[in-house]
Amino acid sequence: MRDKYVTTHTEVSPLRWVGPRWEGQLEMLDQRRLPAEEHWLAMPTYREVAEGIREMAIRGAPAIGIAAAYGVALAAREFGASGDKSATIQDKLAPIYEHLAQTRPTAVNLFWALERIKSVAEEARSLAPRGFITRLFEEARAISAEDFANNEAMGLLGADLLAEGARVLTHCNTGGLATGGLGTALGIIRAAHQQAKLEHVWVSETRPYLQGARLSAWELQKERIPATLITDSTAGYLMQQGKVDAVIVGTDRVAANGDMANKIGSYSLAVLCQYHDIPFYVAAPISTIDLGTKSGAEIPIEERPAREVTHLAQAMIAPAGFPAKNPAFDVTPNRLITAIVTEGGVIRAPYSKGLKALQPL
Amino acid sequence: MRDKYVTTHTEVSPLRWVGPRWEGQLEMLDQRRLPAEEHWLAMPTYREVAEGIREMAIRGAPAIGIAAAYGVALAAREFGASGDKSATIQDKLAPIYEHLAQTRPTAVNLFWALERIKSVAEEARSLAPRGFITRLFEEARAISAEDFANNEAMGLLGADLLAEGARVLTHCNTGGLATGGLGTALGIIRAAHQQAKLEHVWVSETRPYLQGARLSAWELQKERIPATLITDSTAGYLMQQGKVDAVIVGTDRVAANGDMANKIGSYSLAVLCQYHDIPFYVAAPISTIDLGTKSGAEIPIEERPAREVTHLAQAMIAPAGFPAKNPAFDVTPNRLITAIVTEGGVIRAPYSKGLKALQPL
Repeated sequence: MRDKYVTTHTEVSPLRWVGPRWEGQLEMLDQRRLPAEEHWLAMPTYREVAEGIREMAIRGAPAIGIAAAYGVALAAREFGASGDKSATIQDKLAPIYEHLAQTRPTAVNLFWALERIKSVAEEARSLAPRGFITRLFEEARAISAEDFANNEAMGLLGADLLAEGARVLTHCNTGGLATGGLGTALGIIRAAHQQAKLEHVWVSETRPYLQGARLSAWELQKERIPATLITDSTAGYLMQQGKVDAVIVGTDRVAANGDMANKIGSYSLAVLCQYHDIPFYVAAPISTIDLGTKSGAEIPIEERPAREVTHLAQAMIAPAGFPAKNPAFDVTPNRLITAIVTEGGVIRAPYSKGLKALQPL
Repeated sequence: MRDKYVTTHTEVSPLRWVGPRWEGQLEMLDQRRLPAEEHWLAMPTYREVAEGIREMAIRGAPAIGIAAAYGVALAAREFGASGDKSATIQDKLAPIYEHLAQTRPTAVNLFWALERIKSVAEEARSLAPRGFITRLFEEARAISAEDFANNEAMGLLGADLLAEGARVLTHCNTGGLATGGLGTALGIIRAAHQQAKLEHVWVSETRPYLQGARLSAWELQKERIPATLITDSTAGYLMQQGKVDAVIVGTDRVAANGDMANKIGSYSLAVLCQYHDIPFYVAAPISTIDLGTKSGAEIPIEERPAREVTHLAQAMIAPAGFPAKNPAFDVTPNRLITAIVTEGGVIRAPYSKGLKALQPL
């Protein structure tokens, strides 16, 4: 069933809308509690949305972009409730964009979605407040719906790259939970499974946050796609044994030259792929491509709290006070990437040319 | 303080003896409970010793060899208590060697230590029972003491390979807890620290069993060696950033051609080292070298329970029933190894020649 105000995939979605538009609220599936519990967090205002992004109740580059867009619409509704005119509401939104943009630094979709809804607000400022606010909600919904359609297109293009009986390794979670409800890399895996050409999925657990073990495993189990969990360190062993035909990952930002940032560990997988002559594919909606970032060296890498490494499920797994370093992402240089799969086509080296020429669906 | 019946390092040791030889017992530090708790398990007979090795209360190739040797001595004491002659005790030991050998399949030190104590039992069968049993205890203690001396020698030889200000990455635990009380790879790190040439240690947490986070971090903290914990996936990122000068790991078995088995993830580190032109060193007491194994392809790789991957500190971190693959070791081919550090010298390619020519201290 598709939600009236949030486009969702049948099985798995990170967001839903509850109640009528003017009194209802956004809800966010708390991904920190998965797979033990499916708990939905109430998001009556942009404040909870920002907090949910920062604290990783929702994560995944496309999903946080969608959530941020709804955050702006919720803020507009809040300002509109006090009788402000559209132009006044628009002025009051300026610090809200900033507030939402500061939640996570690496994924470009967040900034892209905020820019997009900001442009719409500028265009719509002459509408009456109710129309203005409705326009923002519709734009947030459109971002989600387009993300879903883009993932469908990427799924088909990506599945074409795989041979019959493919055994695919994926890292982190790039599925319905990370997007508008289908998935980027996991969307390709879903498509290949539907085409019955997928033999097996290797799910790397993705320390420290365990998005593979907790989230991808949960999605794959729901859809009965044959899959096995491994520690991140086991990927090289499986490649050495000839048990991996392709690695597919998502991305938080692709630079103009094809370098890309993704979950920590993606770079090591790319190096291992090169050593074993295994293709390394990146699934990237066009919204993830940032032509304003020249190369990977310009992408800021978020450092997250040491506690995510030293503790697990509240349990201390390192001696008290022992320091830990916790970069959330790494950068894979373009030369290690076999192809970038977008909804506008499959791009291969030289990336600068192909990425520049891309046209949205 | 050195224990009278078990040679130990000052700070860290996996085994100790409590009480007089004829009534006392071996005790094993339960490494599964570290770093939260220092709990010593009573080992009055070989049965507890075998269980402790199988269930990983003790781990690390040299340490399990030492523990198994004490297990044989404890069995001899038990048989001697019923008044058996030495030859009868010796006959009764045959299934004990077998029982202890079947606890873990990959590390060769276990089989090496059992062979060694078996030879001593054969030589000593003409002694009176008390002398025979004493001889076995002395041999177990000698294995431990020699391991300590070998680690000291390896530490100095290995530290010579490092430049001033070296930043070293190590995997798993190869310290006092994994040996007779000093360490192989961590012994080299200790020596480099004592020589004030070590700038920093990167400790990879070593999923799934977290020997790095729980054990190496605990040892390094005790000795105040500057160190930072990282997830296994972060190693490649640090190498890319130019923050790793060398990787040093231990090994569970070195084949005649220089291929070696070690904790899962070691192979990936070796591939990453080659890509980044960083030396990859293996610290291997001669007891770890198995000339009877021609190449890495002949080394059996232990598969451990899926639960070690799907659960952590009793908490379920994957959906119920989701399958996991848990190979405990991987094999690094000789071409990815810069040098093998033994107590008899530093061996470089061609390994077959160098390993064959090795002489114990």
